[in-house]
Amino acid sequence: MRAVILAAGEGSRIRPHFTEPKPLIKLLGLSLLERSILSLRECGINDFVIITGYARNEIIDYLGEGSKNKIHITYLHNPNWKQGNGVSAAAFKKIHRPGEKFILTMADHVFNPEVLKTFVQAAASIGHDELLLAADKRLDRVWDLHECTKIKSAGDKAIKLSKTLHDYNAVDCGIFIGTEVLLQALEEAVSGQSYNLTDAVNILASQGKVKLHYIKADWVDVDDPASFRQAEKILLKSALPDKDGLVSRTVNRKFSLPASKILCNTAITPNQVTLISFLTALAAALSFALHQPALGGILAQISSVIDGIDGEIARLKFLKSNYGSLFDAILDRYADFFIVTGMAWDWFAKAGNLAVLLVTAAALTGLPLSMLLKEKYHSITGKAYLPRQDDGLLKFLPANRDGRLFIIMLGGIFNMTPAALVILAVITHFQALGRLAKLRKLL
Amino acid sequence: MRAVILAAGEGSRIRPHFTEPKPLIKLLGLSLLERSILSLRECGINDFVIITGYARNEIIDYLGEGSKNKIHITYLHNPNWKQGNGVSAAAFKKIHRPGEKFILTMADHVFNPEVLKTFVQAAASIGHDELLLAADKRLDRVWDLHECTKIKSAGDKAIKLSKTLHDYNAVDCGIFIGTEVLLQALEEAVSGQSYNLTDAVNILASQGKVKLHYIKADWVDVDDPASFRQAEKILLKSALPDKDGLVSRTVNRKFSLPASKILCNTAITPNQVTLISFLTALAAALSFALHQPALGGILAQISSVIDGIDGEIARLKFLKSNYGSLFDAILDRYADFFIVTGMAWDWFAKAGNLAVLLVTAAALTGLPLSMLLKEKYHSITGKAYLPRQDDGLLKFLPANRDGRLFIIMLGGIFNMTPAALVILAVITHFQALGRLAKLRKLL
Repeated sequence: MRAVILAAGEGSRIRPHFTEPKPLIKLLGLSLLERSILSLRECGINDFVIITGYARNEIIDYLGEGSKNKIHITYLHNPNWKQGNGVSAAAFKKIHRPGEKFILTMADHVFNPEVLKTFVQAAASIGHDELLLAADKRLDRVWDLHECTKIKSAGDKAIKLSKTLHDYNAVDCGIFIGTEVLLQALEEAVSGQSYNLTDAVNILASQGKVKLHYIKADWVDVDDPASFRQAEKILLKSALPDKDGLVSRTVNRKFSLPASKILCNTAITPNQVTLISFLTALAAALSFALHQPALGGILAQISSVIDGIDGEIARLKFLKSNYGSLFDAILDRYADFFIVTGMAWDWFAKAGNLAVLLVTAAALTGLPLSMLLKEKYHSITGKAYLPRQDDGLLKFLPANRDGRLFIIMLGGIFNMTPAALVILAVITHFQALGRLAKLRKLL
Repeated sequence: MRAVILAAGEGSRIRPHFTEPKPLIKLLGLSLLERSILSLRECGINDFVIITGYARNEIIDYLGEGSKNKIHITYLHNPNWKQGNGVSAAAFKKIHRPGEKFILTMADHVFNPEVLKTFVQAAASIGHDELLLAADKRLDRVWDLHECTKIKSAGDKAIKLSKTLHDYNAVDCGIFIGTEVLLQALEEAVSGQSYNLTDAVNILASQGKVKLHYIKADWVDVDDPASFRQAEKILLKSALPDKDGLVSRTVNRKFSLPASKILCNTAITPNQVTLISFLTALAAALSFALHQPALGGILAQISSVIDGIDGEIARLKFLKSNYGSLFDAILDRYADFFIVTGMAWDWFAKAGNLAVLLVTAAALTGLPLSMLLKEKYHSITGKAYLPRQDDGLLKFLPANRDGRLFIIMLGGIFNMTPAALVILAVITHFQALGRLAKLRKLL
């Protein structure tokens, strides 16, 4: 399926606040237009048609043929872009292929990536004489309702659309799966001097041909500084992984997300962040070994926070990689090893007895078990193990990496390294055996 | 798809050597008929039709309705089973559904499970007026060629079949994907007083309707004590996992397979074997801690051999379970922990210094990395990581569990526990970092 992205308008309300033309405004390190493209690439779309108007040359210079992003871009120009977005959308008719379904969206709409994934999958559900429109009926969650195009609907069919509708039950999110009939309706509307996309959609709605797909996650039409900030919020929230542990969710993310928001605008890569997290862990280990437990503990917790940033940046800037995930997983295990060994060294120098050896050994063995069980579960069942959902009461045990590093911080700050080691050994094994008992029934 | 299994014959050549009727003869703990059924169940088949003749009641008493094996069995009786297997196969016509494709096989044919998997998948490749026949053209590998039904073929079509053919290039393996036309040909053959399945297949072959599926793994028609032993060999070989390490492949399996061959005939479960392997590892740890390194080393290696048996029995008796696999993985990590701690204890008592602590910590951290990388790779890519194929030169490093326990044995026997711990620490981390470097390019 090809995607058609309208990037022809001037964006007069946001223009004064930025130096770039609107589609090239950077949101968390990626221009709005690039973000639309990469979000759709995640859904398996590789062929894009961009309709330009205002600032045509800047856009083409910026994005090029798309080979940098491993996609293909065709540009169509609408010299009459000032008339309305219906004229821009109609430009696609020239290169539309008979029977082709296509996605139509706007460069300035920002979606939680989940919205796009389910919408693209729904493309199969419409006939070749229908239009599918993403709609949001969670009216209390819609941003800037006043500016939205409202929809009066009956079941999953749109009856009428307008900005000024009083009797409505959903709003138009600005993504469509189009077919032949949309292009015909656009032509009909334009020749009747109605230049907006909504005019064409209304023609089809009156024929009962507009199906609605109700979305369940957030989105925003970016057209002023406030909606720009809302878009940042939506994206940052979408970057939180489901598999987060308790400490990570309630403490670490409060620090890592603001850091990611800043770092997204730099050239730093997720793997570089992984390395910084690892080096911070080494510094923690060294601090413990040099009998500076408080510093060691704090550095361990900082390393834990940084450990969340790599994934956030990877998701926000579409830089996820299999190798990055593996690199992070292995470096985390080494980091754990150095920290625990540093703690043991500290303790050993004070009380060099067999207990140190045994507790350290137990803790070191327990550390990787959490991840190991999750990975084994994933490779056996093909599904991710989600502690928050699958762990039952065990989810309150701080035995995942975020919880463990938090305990290490407390142990360091209160100069109770031996107690921290004992706790680590106990909770990691308790979690592993608890999960094993749980999975015995489930698998 | 339903499977029709012919279990009507007497099996006169093997009869004198066993007390049970032929379909109920136990091969590695499962009757031949049960094994046919469970092998097909692995391919997604749950609905079985068994054609009985000789010893009808014993067979029905033994298998019942199939609920024990979570399948459904329908029995059809052929009172004229002495006439030939074509008459038995023809009995299915009564309950054949219009347009239905079905698998037809014999209770006494034993296949490497891979043969069945690819054959069942090939069912889609034939039309509703064709017959698909599994054929083997690796004539030098066929067991008891003299007794086989030979096939003269042209490309993937059979031209003629007969036991006494001189000009042939493949043999009939005794599994078919049948359609309407096979049942019609059987009726035609029987009414012409030709009572063998081969007669019906020849009618279809003369019409160009018999397609051949060439198999690539071993099988055998069990009809005397020699072919029974060959069936055991084929199955034992098929129970070896692809992911075996070097020591496992070259040493451990030489002991574990013969043990599995015996244990298959007992009621012992794979999880019980996993537990015995774990207890043996505990005994090894205790021996090290009590300064009996030679005994500790040997017990560690025995635990490693036993660790292979659980999987072999699970595969041979269709007892594989997700939980079993997880249970084994976790218990192996605990076993490793106890053994290494036992070794460290032994060393510590002799030289209680910081080096012991550090080497032990390094070894304990290295131990799970091999499995962890493989599991993470699996859950990221959806494909198993196969050391023999994916490890390159690293495959010669004894850092997988089989290799590690072998090193522990050598360390114990030669009373060089510290050296063994150092080697363990070095090779496990070397393997992990080596794989990481390799996967950086591949992922």
